[in-house]
Amino acid sequence: MTPQFPFTAILGQEELKRCLLLTAIDPAIGGVLAMGDRGTAKSTTVRALADMLALARIEAPVVDLPLGASEDRLLGALDIDAALTQGEVRFRPGLLHEAHRGFLYIDEVNLLDDYLVDLLLDVAASGVNRVERDGISHQHDAQFVLIGSGNPEEGELRPQLEDRFGLSTHVSTIRDVEQRTEIVRRRLLFDATPDLLIEQFRAQQAELARSVGEARQRLADVTVTDNISEAAIRLCIECDVVGHRGEIVLIRAARAAAALRGADEMSCRDLATVAVPALRHRIPREPFESPTTASARVHNIAARTLRLHSVA
Amino acid sequence: MTPQFPFTAILGQEELKRCLLLTAIDPAIGGVLAMGDRGTAKSTTVRALADMLALARIEAPVVDLPLGASEDRLLGALDIDAALTQGEVRFRPGLLHEAHRGFLYIDEVNLLDDYLVDLLLDVAASGVNRVERDGISHQHDAQFVLIGSGNPEEGELRPQLEDRFGLSTHVSTIRDVEQRTEIVRRRLLFDATPDLLIEQFRAQQAELARSVGEARQRLADVTVTDNISEAAIRLCIECDVVGHRGEIVLIRAARAAAALRGADEMSCRDLATVAVPALRHRIPREPFESPTTASARVHNIAARTLRLHSVA
Amino acid sequence: MTPQFPFTAILGQEELKRCLLLTAIDPAIGGVLAMGDRGTAKSTTVRALADMLALARIEAPVVDLPLGASEDRLLGALDIDAALTQGEVRFRPGLLHEAHRGFLYIDEVNLLDDYLVDLLLDVAASGVNRVERDGISHQHDAQFVLIGSGNPEEGELRPQLEDRFGLSTHVSTIRDVEQRTEIVRRRLLFDATPDLLIEQFRAQQAELARSVGEARQRLADVTVTDNISEAAIRLCIECDVVGHRGEIVLIRAARAAAALRGADEMSCRDLATVAVPALRHRIPREPFESPTTASARVHNIAARTLRLHSVA
Amino acid sequence: MTPQFPFTAILGQEELKRCLLLTAIDPAIGGVLAMGDRGTAKSTTVRALADMLALARIEAPVVDLPLGASEDRLLGALDIDAALTQGEVRFRPGLLHEAHRGFLYIDEVNLLDDYLVDLLLDVAASGVNRVERDGISHQHDAQFVLIGSGNPEEGELRPQLEDRFGLSTHVSTIRDVEQRTEIVRRRLLFDATPDLLIEQFRAQQAELARSVGEARQRLADVTVTDNISEAAIRLCIECDVVGHRGEIVLIRAARAAAALRGADEMSCRDLATVAVPALRHRIPREPFESPTTASARVHNIAARTLRLHSVA
Amino acid sequence: MTPQFPFTAILGQEELKRCLLLTAIDPAIGGVLAMGDRGTAKSTTVRALADMLALARIEAPVVDLPLGASEDRLLGALDIDAALTQGEVRFRPGLLHEAHRGFLYIDEVNLLDDYLVDLLLDVAASGVNRVERDGISHQHDAQFVLIGSGNPEEGELRPQLEDRFGLSTHVSTIRDVEQRTEIVRRRLLFDATPDLLIEQFRAQQAELARSVGEARQRLADVTVTDNISEAAIRLCIECDVVGHRGEIVLIRAARAAAALRGADEMSCRDLATVAVPALRHRIPREPFESPTTASARVHNIAARTLRLHSVA
Amino acid sequence: MTPQFPFTAILGQEELKRCLLLTAIDPAIGGVLAMGDRGTAKSTTVRALADMLALARIEAPVVDLPLGASEDRLLGALDIDAALTQGEVRFRPGLLHEAHRGFLYIDEVNLLDDYLVDLLLDVAASGVNRVERDGISHQHDAQFVLIGSGNPEEGELRPQLEDRFGLSTHVSTIRDVEQRTEIVRRRLLFDATPDLLIEQFRAQQAELARSVGEARQRLADVTVTDNISEAAIRLCIECDVVGHRGEIVLIRAARAAAALRGADEMSCRDLATVAVPALRHRIPREPFESPTTASARVHNIAARTLRLHSVA
Repeated sequence: MTPQFPFTAILGQEELKRCLLLTAIDPAIGGVLAMGDRGTAKSTTVRALADMLALARIEAPVVDLPLGASEDRLLGALDIDAALTQGEVRFRPGLLHEAHRGFLYIDEVNLLDDYLVDLLLDVAASGVNRVERDGISHQHDAQFVLIGSGNPEEGELRPQLEDRFGLSTHVSTIRDVEQRTEIVRRRLLFDATPDLLIEQFRAQQAELARSVGEARQRLADVTVTDNISEAAIRLCIECDVVGHRGEIVLIRAARAAAALRGADEMSCRDLATVAVPALRHRIPREPFESPTTASARVHNIAARTLRLHSVA
Repeated sequence: MTPQFPFTAILGQEELKRCLLLTAIDPAIGGVLAMGDRGTAKSTTVRALADMLALARIEAPVVDLPLGASEDRLLGALDIDAALTQGEVRFRPGLLHEAHRGFLYIDEVNLLDDYLVDLLLDVAASGVNRVERDGISHQHDAQFVLIGSGNPEEGELRPQLEDRFGLSTHVSTIRDVEQRTEIVRRRLLFDATPDLLIEQFRAQQAELARSVGEARQRLADVTVTDNISEAAIRLCIECDVVGHRGEIVLIRAARAAAALRGADEMSCRDLATVAVPALRHRIPREPFESPTTASARVHNIAARTLRLHSVA
Repeated sequence: MTPQFPFTAILGQEELKRCLLLTAIDPAIGGVLAMGDRGTAKSTTVRALADMLALARIEAPVVDLPLGASEDRLLGALDIDAALTQGEVRFRPGLLHEAHRGFLYIDEVNLLDDYLVDLLLDVAASGVNRVERDGISHQHDAQFVLIGSGNPEEGELRPQLEDRFGLSTHVSTIRDVEQRTEIVRRRLLFDATPDLLIEQFRAQQAELARSVGEARQRLADVTVTDNISEAAIRLCIECDVVGHRGEIVLIRAARAAAALRGADEMSCRDLATVAVPALRHRIPREPFESPTTASARVHNIAARTLRLHSVA
Repeated sequence: MTPQFPFTAILGQEELKRCLLLTAIDPAIGGVLAMGDRGTAKSTTVRALADMLALARIEAPVVDLPLGASEDRLLGALDIDAALTQGEVRFRPGLLHEAHRGFLYIDEVNLLDDYLVDLLLDVAASGVNRVERDGISHQHDAQFVLIGSGNPEEGELRPQLEDRFGLSTHVSTIRDVEQRTEIVRRRLLFDATPDLLIEQFRAQQAELARSVGEARQRLADVTVTDNISEAAIRLCIECDVVGHRGEIVLIRAARAAAALRGADEMSCRDLATVAVPALRHRIPREPFESPTTASARVHNIAARTLRLHSVA
Repeated sequence: MTPQFPFTAILGQEELKRCLLLTAIDPAIGGVLAMGDRGTAKSTTVRALADMLALARIEAPVVDLPLGASEDRLLGALDIDAALTQGEVRFRPGLLHEAHRGFLYIDEVNLLDDYLVDLLLDVAASGVNRVERDGISHQHDAQFVLIGSGNPEEGELRPQLEDRFGLSTHVSTIRDVEQRTEIVRRRLLFDATPDLLIEQFRAQQAELARSVGEARQRLADVTVTDNISEAAIRLCIECDVVGHRGEIVLIRAARAAAALRGADEMSCRDLATVAVPALRHRIPREPFESPTTASARVHNIAARTLRLHSVA
Repeated sequence: MTPQFPFTAILGQEELKRCLLLTAIDPAIGGVLAMGDRGTAKSTTVRALADMLALARIEAPVVDLPLGASEDRLLGALDIDAALTQGEVRFRPGLLHEAHRGFLYIDEVNLLDDYLVDLLLDVAASGVNRVERDGISHQHDAQFVLIGSGNPEEGELRPQLEDRFGLSTHVSTIRDVEQRTEIVRRRLLFDATPDLLIEQFRAQQAELARSVGEARQRLADVTVTDNISEAAIRLCIECDVVGHRGEIVLIRAARAAAALRGADEMSCRDLATVAVPALRHRIPREPFESPTTASARVHNIAARTLRLHSVA
């Protein structure tokens, strides 16, 4: 077992980390799309999450999907060994099987064939991988959260596909020198003596793991009032969101946020804390608008709409 | 068996629901094309229909065609297991076999290869799937209604293919806040305690199922007068519809509508209620015309033509 | 056996029906190309022809070539069953074998790969299908008339390929309301009680079948004078037809027309009746000229040329 | 055995017929490229040649290469039957084997992949087909004359490939009405009673066969003086022909022509009679120049150059 | 064993040689990208490095990846021999296995498929090659330094991929005549009598090998102060480097440089010596900017930033 | 054994013949690229060289690579016969094996896939063909000179690939009538009575073979002074040649030329005689510059540079 960089030792990228925690609490929120700068430790963060969850006895494997992976490798295929040596048609599970109850991470998701992304989102949504090819007919549970990352300069996903990711977060290079110095320090320390760094963050890890574990159990009991639903819907309408998936994700993510902060009831504040990752990719983009500006627009509309609503 | 969201609990999308009911009453109407906004519960609606029909003892499976499905998976193929272990050439049925007497649902039908759509429409029209490849020669009944959906912003179907769908409906995001609040309420209720929601709609479901069941039996006895045929034809001519498929579909759909309302004879009003879904994709589109405007044109021409005709 | 819509019960599309009859009398005329509006019962008409011919004891199967059909399916291929179970290389006949002595119908022929169309025309011309692939060497008779249809808005055939179809006809939507009302009436009657409609047209069917049967026998005895040949050639020259296939088809089709009307000798009138379908696709098209205008030009040139010739 | 239309009964297309005769006398001239109008009996002519040569006891099969033929079919391939039933790797000859000592006819040669044309010209030039694929290593003699035809409006061959055809001829529609009437008469006579037409031309066929047979034997004895070579070279230089293949073909074709007219020595007149087919495709084409004009230029330069030379 | 040209006998290309040495000391720096002029002995240099390292008992194979290499060859594949003769599914290692603990050299890396480059960088980063295809499931250690070279005129790598190479160096033709004369002299001497040249450089080789060996052992003990980290980060910020990979590579390479010069602590000077290869491909390129100018910009910013920092 | 046209009987194309002789003397010069007019006996010349070398007991096969040759055929592949009949995985050598110690001739090399050309140049440079595919792992010596020819009007090679050919020569049509008359005379004589022509050139062939044989043995003893190296380098610099391959080829070719004229030491004159074929493809081409002008520039720069150098 290679030692894992602690989740709580990762500096910056707060929104990404929060999105991951929320989907760990309620996987029904759907996947997370993390577009932005290269070299910002996205893959390290996802892997660290799994390690932290294990402390809360939440077993959630993280599986990487290499860009050029064959469909056989991804979905599973005929077990050729069994076919050759025993003349039997047997299913050989693929990456989707490995990712069950965990996370499937795809770097450069924007360079993957659209139909594969679509297929992965389908499986993630239905929780079942059904393979019928090469004379094989097999299905198995495949409940996982899809995490896709990529550099928007190299192409964006079709809106149709973006919409199917529950949350969307934008990652960018940290510009604070002190924070970066600390990042380097932790990195080099971990490279040299991993156990030392792990020890330093043991308490924080345990505390976060406990919170997430409790939030998962409390989730079903967090009530959603019609008032909150209406606030979420009005926010979606103000943002000109197409379809009804926006408000569902918004409410689910806010409920998970409420559970994480230990509350029994959602508030408009919970909606506000997740509005940007839930709607940034659903607000119609203006020509040449940057992701940052789109986020700011969601943020401002949320501030205004939810305040009014709270007041009302 | 996963519990199914009740058809009658679905709010909004009235035209889509009506189109599905009419094709359930008379599958000879041909498929349904549902273009429009993403995230508007199209797939939930189709699946809910099958569940409701079962109450009327109408067994109509709903089969999803994933975008990247192989032809083997779709049409059926050589059973490799049998070939390997018993040296026999046997047919292994595909999705078309599963869809027999039911519905085949294709999301993003506009991204599917034209020739596959064409082939599916052929099978749906003839009711027979005939497979001759890889040394297999097999045919089986495959009577199903093809439901295609998609986002027109990502490309439209060729007019030649659109024309082969019996009905066409445009789905869009609901803008009424109360209705959406109720949608969210029902969704969350169903997620938490499916049985509760199902219980609430049991009576409505049973009532609708009964109506559809009776309509299917009454259908053959609904008379079509020459007068009605002529009205349908004049409407098609006014709409500049190419070919004669328009009037046939229009009359069949109106007859199903008459059967559903319990009538023994079709009226011009029945034609009027189905004119838009039957002709919207057959009226020649003006440059840059939106689907909504095209629908409005059909609506207006229908209102005018059919009124005159009724008077006459 | 599904009951077949009677050929004589089909209203309109007179030119198409006539072209089909002529090629049924003399298959050496070559195939028929039917471009034009969608939804105009082309496929029904071809299928109805076969049924009617059967009354005259002319067995002429109608075989559909689906757009995405594999070459294996079309030409025939290795019989894998025999190979697997008996270790034998045996030929498994394809659609061309089925179409022998009948009609091969291809809808959307303009979307088929040029080389397949070419190959089909080759086989149709030589009457022999010779397959040499995958270690198979087999040939069988394959005498059939190729019927291709399609919508010219979606692309036209190369002139080189058009030229190899004997006759070309343009089908368009009928605009007469009474005729269309009658079409609908017959269609719905046939759907409800096929036997009733078939009974109504039994006499007409028998009469037409008898005429075609007699025409086939009389054909060899219809004389072609040099005078008629010269008239046909002058007409081709006036139409600027490239190559010599035009006059051969023109004469053969006119001879079949003479046989059908019971004559012993061809007249210039027979040439006139087939000039448009024989030459419409061989007259050089002017830029942006519609098929209708091209037909009108052939018609006028034929009228002028043949009148002069008759006089002389 | 289907009866064959007699070569001497074919009217018109004199240059094509002459080119075929010359390559039948000296196959080393290389292939014949016949571009021009469709429907001008090119394929009938080639097939008729083989039949006529048989009378002179020259066995020269004519093999058609269908446009979409696989490489297996063309070159030969593994004999799957032998592999399956006897576990042996055996060669199964293809079309090139069949064409040995005869003609390989490719219609629409301009639509064939360049590399296949190249390969065919290589085999034709070397006289050997060497196949090394799928574990097969086999070679056999494959001496044949390549006849390619096509419609230049659909694309031309690369100059590099044109140059490798020995002779090039342009075929066009005959415009003489009497000749065409006679063509139709012979065609219809042959269709009805082939033996009658064959009988009419028996003497002419025998006479031509005898001449060709004698010419083949006399060929080696026809002397080529340096004077004639120089004349051929000067003509090539005047025509700006690239490379030295032009003069070689010119001399060989003229020598065959001399042999055909029964002479022992070539004259400048022999050069003149073959200059156009030998050089038309080797004279650099001016922008937008038609093949006819290029031919005329060759003709005029030949007339001038060879006259001067004869005088000198 | 073919004799190898000595690393120390290679004249010029100092930056490339230095980059190779640094990655030999700390492979975690990541690969080296060497773009520039063709014909500058890049491949000879990489091969010579391996030979020199062997003297220090550092076994580091150099493996060439041919441009057209199949994935099977690269990653490993099913051992067909074992499958055929023993019916066993066994893994047959590929080039990545051979390259373990050494260097994988790809000439014309800019012409390789992006996804292959990506995959190679993934394996190089994780140190594990995991193959799951054709029914094979195998993984093996594959720790290697990826060396890519190419001519930028034929296309550049995507920034996303460039960023994943630790160091980037630009190679160009040497313009000093004396140096080139000496290069020729050594080349011809080596061609004629390799042992002679090898003997001449034996001492230098041994000395360099010893330094590298010692540097590898000292590496872990070279301390990195926060001050140095901050200097590296400020330099990256001044260069507008995206993400955090820049500073990590910069620090690692400088640490290796410190180790090579025998120091126990890194200085700003060490940063300065590696700034250009570590950041040249990470500084945003200005439109039409040449690699040389980009290098100069990094150089100048490094000089300025690091001086200030040293002072501070 | 087909008789071979004698190398010394080939008229014209002096530079091509000289390049071939030099590479026969020192294969390390690298391949020869011969672009220019079609029909100029390039392939005959290469084949004639092998025949002549055999007289000097230099066995150097000439192998043709057909344009469409499969990789199997080129590199070698699994021996399917052995696999089927004996269940053994055995290597079946390809064209590269046949070409060992000889010449591999590729006509239309500019139409070959770049990666294949690259691969061939790699094998030619390393002298080893290593095949790892389809479960085969095999390597064999493959030392050969690559001769590529083509028509530049149909596309040029990438500079990167051109550079890897040692020498480059431009072939064009001979314009001298007497020489061409003699070419025709020899060609026809050879066609009719090959032995007669071969006899006429027996002495010349033997004499040239002897010279080449002696030159090969003397090669290692021809000394290269630093002065000559410097002259070669200055010439390359004056020609703006990129990289260092130019001077190495220049010196090797000049050394072979010196050996061929029987000298013990190279002179600047030897450099001058090979400057054009060694550098023509390495001098940066000016926009729209013809190969002839580029050659002239090399020639002039060589004349000037080498004269100065000789003087100094």
